[in-house]
Amino acid sequence: MSNCIIAQSGGPTAVINATVAGLVKANQLNPYYDHVYGGLHGIEGILQEKFVDLTNMSEEENRILKQTPASALGSCRYKLKRDNVADFKKLIEVLDKYDIETMFYTGGNDSMDTVAALSEYAVKNGITNHRFVGCPKTVDNDLMHTDHCPGFASAAKFIASTALQTWLDYNVYTRQEVFILETMGRDAGWLAASACLSEHVDLLVLPEDEFNEEAFLAQVKEIVEKTNKCYIVVSEGVKYADGTYLAAKNAQNDGFGHAILGGAGNALKELILSTKTAERCKVQDLSTAQRAFALTQSLVDVEESYRLGMSAHMRSCDGKFTGKMVMVTRKPGEYYDVEFGAVDASEVANYVKSFPKEWILDNYRGISEEAKNYLRPLIAGTPTILMENGLPAYVKPYYMR
Amino acid sequence: MSNCIIAQSGGPTAVINATVAGLVKANQLNPYYDHVYGGLHGIEGILQEKFVDLTNMSEEENRILKQTPASALGSCRYKLKRDNVADFKKLIEVLDKYDIETMFYTGGNDSMDTVAALSEYAVKNGITNHRFVGCPKTVDNDLMHTDHCPGFASAAKFIASTALQTWLDYNVYTRQEVFILETMGRDAGWLAASACLSEHVDLLVLPEDEFNEEAFLAQVKEIVEKTNKCYIVVSEGVKYADGTYLAAKNAQNDGFGHAILGGAGNALKELILSTKTAERCKVQDLSTAQRAFALTQSLVDVEESYRLGMSAHMRSCDGKFTGKMVMVTRKPGEYYDVEFGAVDASEVANYVKSFPKEWILDNYRGISEEAKNYLRPLIAGTPTILMENGLPAYVKPYYMR
Repeated sequence: MSNCIIAQSGGPTAVINATVAGLVKANQLNPYYDHVYGGLHGIEGILQEKFVDLTNMSEEENRILKQTPASALGSCRYKLKRDNVADFKKLIEVLDKYDIETMFYTGGNDSMDTVAALSEYAVKNGITNHRFVGCPKTVDNDLMHTDHCPGFASAAKFIASTALQTWLDYNVYTRQEVFILETMGRDAGWLAASACLSEHVDLLVLPEDEFNEEAFLAQVKEIVEKTNKCYIVVSEGVKYADGTYLAAKNAQNDGFGHAILGGAGNALKELILSTKTAERCKVQDLSTAQRAFALTQSLVDVEESYRLGMSAHMRSCDGKFTGKMVMVTRKPGEYYDVEFGAVDASEVANYVKSFPKEWILDNYRGISEEAKNYLRPLIAGTPTILMENGLPAYVKPYYMR
Repeated sequence: MSNCIIAQSGGPTAVINATVAGLVKANQLNPYYDHVYGGLHGIEGILQEKFVDLTNMSEEENRILKQTPASALGSCRYKLKRDNVADFKKLIEVLDKYDIETMFYTGGNDSMDTVAALSEYAVKNGITNHRFVGCPKTVDNDLMHTDHCPGFASAAKFIASTALQTWLDYNVYTRQEVFILETMGRDAGWLAASACLSEHVDLLVLPEDEFNEEAFLAQVKEIVEKTNKCYIVVSEGVKYADGTYLAAKNAQNDGFGHAILGGAGNALKELILSTKTAERCKVQDLSTAQRAFALTQSLVDVEESYRLGMSAHMRSCDGKFTGKMVMVTRKPGEYYDVEFGAVDASEVANYVKSFPKEWILDNYRGISEEAKNYLRPLIAGTPTILMENGLPAYVKPYYMR
């Protein structure tokens, strides 16, 4: 008899629970594990033995879990420090106590570092009865090796839809107007770039490009003079050449040593108005909604997230799979298709996959056709969302039960 | 032979074009008018004879127009002043020149004032060959007489969905957290109140209530102490007892004498943090997206908006209908149903229908069940949205052709 546990870490996405639903469903199709536990609030909850039993989840709950945004098991930003032996020992004790053979951990590169650290610790200490498997999720799409990350595409679809629809809105008056859409993206510009799928972004400001005020304002000026309008998309993580954030005034710290950003859009607005480059400027910061708005999930995204959970389960049934992150590889060919694979979590941990420089057009003029060809298939398809009283049905978070 | 013209005014909505589509379709079903013209950029464009001919719109274009947000004919904020006789004369000249029997004008209370002023001018000057009909639209839902306004429900659905989904998101961490969702609503709290359909709003701050810092902070404190969290929704138009806006720092003027608001959410955040009522506070301002996000239109809203356009056309076929606004009346009974009617535009112009005081719970604790029973049927149903490359298909704005 053995069990498994799944826990979620880091920022939520619109499809993060689909991976949990897929894993639970896989174990119902092939009950390799006696129990599928959910660990509440990531590694923190596991250390405190805060579990729920997901083994016998009903088909209805499974279906609604797939469309419920935000970590239904709760999340944490707790980072297992490699020199904190007490935490490692405690965790192994808990896994022993509950006969947990495999721990699945969904998250970004910090979570993959946790998976790598735990599997290294197990190897080093001759622990063979516990295994650690990572499942990628991040709206930022900045994990290495995987073609893309579950969660990214639904956020991209929401961003591109909002860009398209607010572009239609800001055009209705004849007056001069600049619109700035701010997206998430601390280190990588994938989310901001996805707005270009609307085909209406005039200027795109990415963290991959050092921000140059003069060059940027010259572009705004040129476009406003020509069209009386300018639609700008900016990523929260844009920096000047000296490394300071455009939104530096608001910078704080989130405990992982990352700055908490926000306000790049307002910084651009101030720049544009104070230099009289344009008369009128509106900012929309998509904030939390861009990662939480599951009502418009991408079908590709939610199905891949689900299958990734299934694939993680199925791979783990060999009794050896550990220290790996399950990933998505795009198959070559005219039509979009993927296969699932695995990579050492240590090769993902603490790296960032930037938006490719060669996909960025000069003078903030957006992204190349190649970039759009990469992005476009990811936002395809509309899943059927079950509704209740006019709003999306959702599963009550397990940590609230 | 006679023609009609339709034009759009004021801020766009997610279903504003459905009224145009319905009117065009009605004339195809019963060609009372030889031509259905669209006036570009409201009254401004009509004065400049900027028209498009919509008479023979294809069924496909009609269908996509219904789901295209933001005034496809362009909008304006130009107000016909009653003492500006030159404008009135010029307008009648244009209508004469193009044999326009009926002018349909979609908009809010300023637009209904235009309809009233024009029909009064016609009566006063013995002009019998031109008629003026108003079609309500406003996300603010603040027009008198009509049970609700086309455009409101889709915005309400987007707001309530976002409230639900960001509520799920802000709960995932165990840390203390206050979330503030800011909605539009200059004078009336309908949009902010609709967030309560999520059933997760702890505190609701409406323009109908004088804002009391102490009373509000006491509620925040109580909820945070009890649950470690607090989900707050605030309308942009909230005022102190002395009439100053919570967001006063950012107040400007839009030309109609209305303040341009924004920042009520940030004002609350500053208040909460500076008084140490909570440690952490995040603001999401829904801004333009709440009125432009047509991908999640309410089925009730878009169909009513369409039928309102049809009803306006059909009523006008009596050759007498003028100075009226077409409106929606809710029928009594257990199940939601409406009938269409008409009211003098002068009875709508320049009035504001506030959110009923008796529907507001004490201590910012949201809205009554009666209020929810009013709101809930409006957001029901999901129309089929035609997609193109993963994004909602849309009609290219007529003013760009």
